[in-house]
Amino acid sequence: MAPKGQKFELKTPKGTKDWHGKSMVIRDKIFSTITEVFKRHGAVTIDTPVFELKEILAGKYGEDSKLIYDLADQGGEMCSLRYDLTVPFARWLAMNSNVQNIKRYHIAKVYRRDQPAMTKGRMREFYQCDFDIAGTYDPMLPDAEVVRIATEVFDGLGWQGRYTIKLNHRKILDGVFEVCGVPADKIRTISSAVDKLDKLPWVDVRKEMTEDKGLAEEVADKIGEYVVLKGQKDLLSKLQADEKLMANESMKAGVADMNLLFEYLEAFDALENVSFDLSLARGLDYYTGVIYEIVTEGSAPPATITATNGVPPKSSKKSSKAVADADEDRSSDPTIGVGSVAAGGRYDNLVGMFSGKAQIPCVGISFGVDRIFSITEARMAADKSAEQVRNNETEVYLMAFGGKGFTGLVKERMKLCSMLWKAGIKAEFLYKVKPKLQNQFKAAEVNDTPLSVIIGEDEIAQGKVKLKENGLQDGHPEKEGILVNVSDLVSEIKQRLKRKAELDSITREAEGLKVIDGIRGEPAIAQPAAEAEAPTEPGKEVSETKEALPNP
Amino acid sequence: MAPKGQKFELKTPKGTKDWHGKSMVIRDKIFSTITEVFKRHGAVTIDTPVFELKEILAGKYGEDSKLIYDLADQGGEMCSLRYDLTVPFARWLAMNSNVQNIKRYHIAKVYRRDQPAMTKGRMREFYQCDFDIAGTYDPMLPDAEVVRIATEVFDGLGWQGRYTIKLNHRKILDGVFEVCGVPADKIRTISSAVDKLDKLPWVDVRKEMTEDKGLAEEVADKIGEYVVLKGQKDLLSKLQADEKLMANESMKAGVADMNLLFEYLEAFDALENVSFDLSLARGLDYYTGVIYEIVTEGSAPPATITATNGVPPKSSKKSSKAVADADEDRSSDPTIGVGSVAAGGRYDNLVGMFSGKAQIPCVGISFGVDRIFSITEARMAADKSAEQVRNNETEVYLMAFGGKGFTGLVKERMKLCSMLWKAGIKAEFLYKVKPKLQNQFKAAEVNDTPLSVIIGEDEIAQGKVKLKENGLQDGHPEKEGILVNVSDLVSEIKQRLKRKAELDSITREAEGLKVIDGIRGEPAIAQPAAEAEAPTEPGKEVSETKEALPNP
Repeated sequence: MAPKGQKFELKTPKGTKDWHGKSMVIRDKIFSTITEVFKRHGAVTIDTPVFELKEILAGKYGEDSKLIYDLADQGGEMCSLRYDLTVPFARWLAMNSNVQNIKRYHIAKVYRRDQPAMTKGRMREFYQCDFDIAGTYDPMLPDAEVVRIATEVFDGLGWQGRYTIKLNHRKILDGVFEVCGVPADKIRTISSAVDKLDKLPWVDVRKEMTEDKGLAEEVADKIGEYVVLKGQKDLLSKLQADEKLMANESMKAGVADMNLLFEYLEAFDALENVSFDLSLARGLDYYTGVIYEIVTEGSAPPATITATNGVPPKSSKKSSKAVADADEDRSSDPTIGVGSVAAGGRYDNLVGMFSGKAQIPCVGISFGVDRIFSITEARMAADKSAEQVRNNETEVYLMAFGGKGFTGLVKERMKLCSMLWKAGIKAEFLYKVKPKLQNQFKAAEVNDTPLSVIIGEDEIAQGKVKLKENGLQDGHPEKEGILVNVSDLVSEIKQRLKRKAELDSITREAEGLKVIDGIRGEPAIAQPAAEAEAPTEPGKEVSETKEALPNP
Repeated sequence: MAPKGQKFELKTPKGTKDWHGKSMVIRDKIFSTITEVFKRHGAVTIDTPVFELKEILAGKYGEDSKLIYDLADQGGEMCSLRYDLTVPFARWLAMNSNVQNIKRYHIAKVYRRDQPAMTKGRMREFYQCDFDIAGTYDPMLPDAEVVRIATEVFDGLGWQGRYTIKLNHRKILDGVFEVCGVPADKIRTISSAVDKLDKLPWVDVRKEMTEDKGLAEEVADKIGEYVVLKGQKDLLSKLQADEKLMANESMKAGVADMNLLFEYLEAFDALENVSFDLSLARGLDYYTGVIYEIVTEGSAPPATITATNGVPPKSSKKSSKAVADADEDRSSDPTIGVGSVAAGGRYDNLVGMFSGKAQIPCVGISFGVDRIFSITEARMAADKSAEQVRNNETEVYLMAFGGKGFTGLVKERMKLCSMLWKAGIKAEFLYKVKPKLQNQFKAAEVNDTPLSVIIGEDEIAQGKVKLKENGLQDGHPEKEGILVNVSDLVSEIKQRLKRKAELDSITREAEGLKVIDGIRGEPAIAQPAAEAEAPTEPGKEVSETKEALPNP
């Protein structure tokens, strides 16, 4: 099919995709649900360029810097595509010194030269939805609001009771490491090892600590006792009861923060989905306080890779094909989950990396929309609610119909359509001078257009048209439509659309379904793969490799 | 201010900018106004990657290909940032052969390595809003709807009567060239010369035709007689009366199309702002039928560069600085207008460049949002309506107040805020445990928050809070707020917000102002620079250099 001389495959670049059709509609509904929550909390949005000066990104992502896309050197400045939205936000704060505090959100694409697995949301171009609070405030108040926002987002998406907000604190982790006897110069590298507990069993992490990183075995074992702990206020009490731990300054500071946080989360009615989890470490160096990570059913890979037999996932039979060609589409590989659906934390020193002394403390969270989309889509496919999503929003399809000598009434259709557009009604007609009636009905049906207006030569001569509600049951008195004066058409249409919208909303409420602007988010099925595999380590939530995690 | 070791300037890359504050709010309102129009016409949106395979863009933009941004070769495919949204759309159509017709819109950033002049909208990263109709239909029906859409967009922005939709037809232009005696192999290059009439006087264009491109002088002079013509149906009649012209096949086809187009535009009530303009040529090769370009007051540079003395703009004194350093910010240079605010046309062969035989005819228009924004912003600054644009949408600011022993009531504020959020009310409070009342009022004022809820220890103990409408006049009975039961707070707030919205809308209507979702678009001032300069060639609209025009 390629034209002569065209030697390349017609496709989007690797790790990128086009969005269209119902996916696009669903994705936009997710965006608007999230945006609504952000605005409810007083946030404003900013928009930064898709590329930054290369130096801005340098030294911010550690080993992952190799995943940064550079623009070609075509003369002038050296630039790179943004890797996340956090560093550009910090750069913006440093440049706008008049802004000392802001709640900002930013929904935009970011870029990572990763090995993509297409349908599970591991892409080279993907969306992040970031919300951050910058400013010097009393401890833990903004941090608590970020958790509250996460609950509003996921409840708004219809995920009630099916997600876990994992919390930890950098200072608590550091305190544990110090008390266990990790040398100061090994704290960060040991923290990186702990960070892998969401995808590797403890035995492997312990091995990395001792064999690769030279940690004493008894120190590793002590760490092992702590990082399995999770809970809520009970865990906090347990830590506070441990005199040896509480003698550590870092630990004491972290526990004080967490105490406040739990009090505030209670006041915010945001405790239900929270899990204080000592195994949560987050890879990025720039976190300085509380850290968050949110997982949901289906967002974690199934159990094979968390089995405690010490066999790393790459050597498992299931994924041997993936190992053979890391570039292939691994979308149906069951060892691939979509990872965490949101993550973040407090980063008090990042702005200062750009502006020197002018430090602005920040805390924030990034929602991984592509993953949230994948899960929503799978859930909608399961309950068939995707079928109810319309492609476009057309309210009226304008048709002409006539017998012998039918002219097509094209200008009449255009004039009536203009009248409807002027009244703000979404209307279409077929771009044919003499259209067949069945083709016009087909065009209306394709997009589930709720109303049809049918023009006939006799009726229009009397200033009348036929108005028809599509999809009425046989036997309904208005099944064939009603005659309406052209002068009443706009108000007649608006009344019917309003009534239809009210009825739809009542029906959905009666069915007890959570609605995202017309999309049903409930109910989901249990992930089938998880049932077929070996049991997960009890209570252990797992997520994907760090490279693909949303940042911060 | 730069931290130690930071050797680079803290800035965005050349030709890019951050959007924030009121600019961001106004820009988003422009987007939503435009999107609303597109949806009213049944359009759906698609989203393509920000970069494409390099080969996709190759050979589509002629000389302007040098402006394409390439990604660095880091292994794997060679990619480039998209130059417009039209070629990615054609690539998408070619890849999705199941889609034989679609009305699609796409609002996204495009990239051109141009020399930017910052505030007038000539940027390296800028937004386009594209609307296109793809599919095989009866002649000129989609073409007419695109013009109708342009009128709805600019009327929706409050620009009634202050923009001109220039129309021409590729086949009419080609017919004129053939009849005047332009050799077949020179038609495209002579068309390119005519295309410059929007920024150069005829004497310069004639010189380019004869001296640079070797056209006979008498042929050029004949062309000169035609390209000055403009009008509406009168011009069409004039062309039709010219037997020599009408003997030309291309001309005949073009005139037939334009006849239909004018009939349809009349039916669509979209003729008012249309100018059939034989000097309109549009640079891109891929246009095959009708072409559009929309200009407005202030979107064209003032008169110096259209003076007929044959002095090209670069040697005028006004712009000598700009010549000295093409890279500098020329935002205050009066010879720079923002160019056309929208442009497009019919391109029936572009999809076939990707898919070989599978041709899909298309017609569309691209709105240059950055330019529309610049003009809107200038007009709002002139009538001070920008002051009424709020930064955020917070509806309620929640405060605490107390005398001696005041605890700050932080948890009470959090609980009440949670209650308001749950009810969908946009609410904030100060992140201080014991905030000062004046700091809380200041925070509410900064964003013009309409309502305050004030919590006092005595009142809250009785289940009451004070609700206050901000900005009431002195002497108003509720100036100091009213006591409300906490159980009634949500409904009380919702009632007041609704009433306030209704009042605002009545006030604006009474003032006769066009409102874009709460933004006043009227009235504008005449561009001062235009008055100070030499008079423009009568009736001649001018626009900026082709490189920066929105495509298609």
